[in-house]
Amino acid sequence: MTNKRILIVGGVAGGASCAARARRLSEEAEIVIFDRGSFVSFANCGLPYYVGSVIADEKKLLVANEDLFRNRFNIQVRLEHEAIAIDRSARILKVKNLRSGEILEEPYDALVLSPGASPIRPPLPGIDLPGIFALRTIPDSRRIREWIDLHRVKQAVIVGGGFIGLEMTENLANRGIAVTLLEKLPQVMPPFDPEMMVSVHAHLRERGVKLCLGDGVKSFERVSDDRLAVLTEAGEHHEAEMVILAIGVRPETALAKEAGLELGDRGGIRVNSRMQTGDPNIWAVGDAVEVRDWITGEWTLIPLAGPANRQGRIAADVICGRDSDFRGVQGTAVCSIFELVVASTGASEKTLRRSGLDYRKVYLHPGHHAGYFPGAEPIDIKLLYAPADGRVLGAQAVGKEGTEKRIDVIAMAIQAGLTVFDLEEAELCYAPQFGAAKDPVNFAGMIAANAARGDSPIVYWEDLELGRVTLLDAREVAEFDRGHVAGALNIPLSELRRRMDEIPLDRPVWTYCQVGQRGYYATRALRQRGFDAYNLTGGIKTYYAMREIGATI
Amino acid sequence: MTNKRILIVGGVAGGASCAARARRLSEEAEIVIFDRGSFVSFANCGLPYYVGSVIADEKKLLVANEDLFRNRFNIQVRLEHEAIAIDRSARILKVKNLRSGEILEEPYDALVLSPGASPIRPPLPGIDLPGIFALRTIPDSRRIREWIDLHRVKQAVIVGGGFIGLEMTENLANRGIAVTLLEKLPQVMPPFDPEMMVSVHAHLRERGVKLCLGDGVKSFERVSDDRLAVLTEAGEHHEAEMVILAIGVRPETALAKEAGLELGDRGGIRVNSRMQTGDPNIWAVGDAVEVRDWITGEWTLIPLAGPANRQGRIAADVICGRDSDFRGVQGTAVCSIFELVVASTGASEKTLRRSGLDYRKVYLHPGHHAGYFPGAEPIDIKLLYAPADGRVLGAQAVGKEGTEKRIDVIAMAIQAGLTVFDLEEAELCYAPQFGAAKDPVNFAGMIAANAARGDSPIVYWEDLELGRVTLLDAREVAEFDRGHVAGALNIPLSELRRRMDEIPLDRPVWTYCQVGQRGYYATRALRQRGFDAYNLTGGIKTYYAMREIGATI
Repeated sequence: MTNKRILIVGGVAGGASCAARARRLSEEAEIVIFDRGSFVSFANCGLPYYVGSVIADEKKLLVANEDLFRNRFNIQVRLEHEAIAIDRSARILKVKNLRSGEILEEPYDALVLSPGASPIRPPLPGIDLPGIFALRTIPDSRRIREWIDLHRVKQAVIVGGGFIGLEMTENLANRGIAVTLLEKLPQVMPPFDPEMMVSVHAHLRERGVKLCLGDGVKSFERVSDDRLAVLTEAGEHHEAEMVILAIGVRPETALAKEAGLELGDRGGIRVNSRMQTGDPNIWAVGDAVEVRDWITGEWTLIPLAGPANRQGRIAADVICGRDSDFRGVQGTAVCSIFELVVASTGASEKTLRRSGLDYRKVYLHPGHHAGYFPGAEPIDIKLLYAPADGRVLGAQAVGKEGTEKRIDVIAMAIQAGLTVFDLEEAELCYAPQFGAAKDPVNFAGMIAANAARGDSPIVYWEDLELGRVTLLDAREVAEFDRGHVAGALNIPLSELRRRMDEIPLDRPVWTYCQVGQRGYYATRALRQRGFDAYNLTGGIKTYYAMREIGATI
Repeated sequence: MTNKRILIVGGVAGGASCAARARRLSEEAEIVIFDRGSFVSFANCGLPYYVGSVIADEKKLLVANEDLFRNRFNIQVRLEHEAIAIDRSARILKVKNLRSGEILEEPYDALVLSPGASPIRPPLPGIDLPGIFALRTIPDSRRIREWIDLHRVKQAVIVGGGFIGLEMTENLANRGIAVTLLEKLPQVMPPFDPEMMVSVHAHLRERGVKLCLGDGVKSFERVSDDRLAVLTEAGEHHEAEMVILAIGVRPETALAKEAGLELGDRGGIRVNSRMQTGDPNIWAVGDAVEVRDWITGEWTLIPLAGPANRQGRIAADVICGRDSDFRGVQGTAVCSIFELVVASTGASEKTLRRSGLDYRKVYLHPGHHAGYFPGAEPIDIKLLYAPADGRVLGAQAVGKEGTEKRIDVIAMAIQAGLTVFDLEEAELCYAPQFGAAKDPVNFAGMIAANAARGDSPIVYWEDLELGRVTLLDAREVAEFDRGHVAGALNIPLSELRRRMDEIPLDRPVWTYCQVGQRGYYATRALRQRGFDAYNLTGGIKTYYAMREIGATI
């Protein structure tokens, strides 16, 4: 059946991709997109940069418009049309024309729900005061821009330190606005592990952001005509001319729920791998659906544009009679915050712990390119893998140039089910301004593979019990003197072979250095001489991060 | 046996890696590196940038030195010691101390040859004139720097447009020297396919380089005290104060050959996947050995630092009793030339054609990040894959930022044996300044997958026969008027559905647009209406490159 009537609710990312793909598969189908907003297929991910005037022209945000859909794809787009009910037995979608108030009854053969997600607005006192904004749509960003200009905003409070919160922090700061960033968790970027965010916190503070972690909003108050106060659970009081709420999004499921479609435990629409709901004529895609986590196999909510687009295409495939499966989501994501880039793929340590999956981890801090070429900057990398077979489970990276490149490479490795032994063998681009003969990805693989083979077992700072082990600092004396872990014995690697008799043989030796490399060499030398030696992964650089987050060490 | 005596000939990249790895596996082994040069483990790949003063301090090039090897690894390094013969039956290496002239007889249990490769110096008239240099060692780079200063070099001729030739071109130009670049082939960067280098040629010329392709040197002459002339086969005459020979390298095999070790057809030392020569006590690694091409399975010479390091570690593994195998070389490489980045992995079309492997190709020209974010720059990408199963065989990319990132991601996909269908599904980092919801890697996969599934069959510009097909330009009229392929019929995509009756049904329709996307949409629409439609891959952008290299179209 190719002359279907395909209705799509929601014309951004997943919905737009689904419509265009359906047309490529079927010239005969009638395809109609309904969107309650005023724009179709706009660049959601560009909104913070439009607020920041990095993207100067609002039109740039319009990836496509009604005319393009009509002329290029023969797809009808009905904006300001809100889907209000589904009559599943009759296969009719009820749509309200928000301009005229008219209710339309639209029959369908296939219905695709791509309603997206909406910003969470907790019912706190004062939440509806003027000057409190969320950012999800082009009109949202317009309102924020207008408010900034009208009230000559000098101070803003951003509530929530996730992707949008950090991007808004950068963009407002770059417009000369003093930003207070309030995050309920003790870290920004909740999908990341906390120790990886320590340098991000420092960077935010260096750039003048007032960063308040571990504190949530209690209420909002009006202070004067154009000033608000944010009162926090810890009793703090932050004044500003504007508040941005960036505490996450919630799947838009009202329509699906009312139609009796199944929702999952995480609150999203439940679909199978063909993006089909329990109703064989209704599909759902994008931020509103729960997806399978590629690593843990668990249902999760991951509101990202790439997967939404893939899901839209898969729904169109299935509607048009093709076999197509969504493989799940790795959660590959990147965020830029001033000079830093923060990126990850696969599972975090928190996720793995919560899921009860067995994992090991390594930390490393390689330069983003060869050290002999000027301008090498460190990238902090954390790699997670399965001890049974070395399969890569996840990676996080924080650095400047070349940071998201390493995550992209590892994302591809995770997709392929590769192991840390494969990362060791990866053959990547090397010229001195781009990488190194041993790329950071190779190093990550080597460190993990050395541990997995038992050549240089890795231990974690958070497991260190000083009384039980000898803690050996393998750095030079001058480095040791500049700062070391209390209780450490300092024998520089270069003196280790002739000074091994200073190390007790009756207990394990845990070695460390600056980033882990000399600790590795020391571990190898010690193990061959009969010591029960281990290398503290990430060296003292990771120790400082661990100490900062209060790991018990 | 761990208390072996391991001798290593050549202390750069492969040799140095082998030595350090051997020590990590055996504290007891005696490990000695002999190198006829004055430096061990120096950054060969940094030399052009040292000549260009980008790397200001020569010491930066020394990744390690004798003291570090002794103190950190208990490895002896004997510089200015040339290995001159191997007595295989007695297992003795004869070494000449180049300072004293003394001949040493060094017994070994395991011998590792890592002699590298030396610049090719063809026996042309005048080749030994002062002012003609090759660049392979730190002393070479010193001599070039001194010559530039002493003779106030204003003009240089570089012979050879490969990696070193291009890097030297950039570095000399950045020092204010007018460069003539002479390349015997009709393209720079011989490992790449010629059409991919067209934009590089234009870029070189824009940057003031006098680029002479398809012309080789006949002889060198002295013009005056500090001027040389390069006379070419085409009868050209290029004057300069300095000539750099960068016409490639040749494996250093004299020692191996004299010892009766097998050499391969490509002129390198033949080893098995354990890096072992025919003599069970002799290993060879690095630029001097032939390696298996990961794609074609053929023996090849690929002088790259990454693989050399891996080979060194594998030789050490095997010497120390471990099972370790070298998986072969993909040839992943990158070169920066002024603002452009040129990168590739896997096989080129030339290689595939030569090897007789069945392949298909797609071209694309996506932006390096989302178009709505300012500063998006196109990347020209060529992806090669096997038609039978879609397996990715190779990729080439030319662009600015983010170019080598895409090649690294595809390199990982090739290592994993992934297909174009997997690239379609890749989940990569997306924020507007880094990528797009559909990354260029996804697009490459989609285009190829659409072709492989038969949805949008791809045709090549070089196969176009105007009389046989209808050539359809699906761009807007204004674009068509600015330039199009002669004989093309212009029906903009937006008018195609209502103007299909203008297209003859009795012959195939080959569509094109600017880069291939609208051509794809047109192909889909036409095929569903019964036309035998195809999309010309890469659009008119690829057509112009093809025309430039003289493909018969």
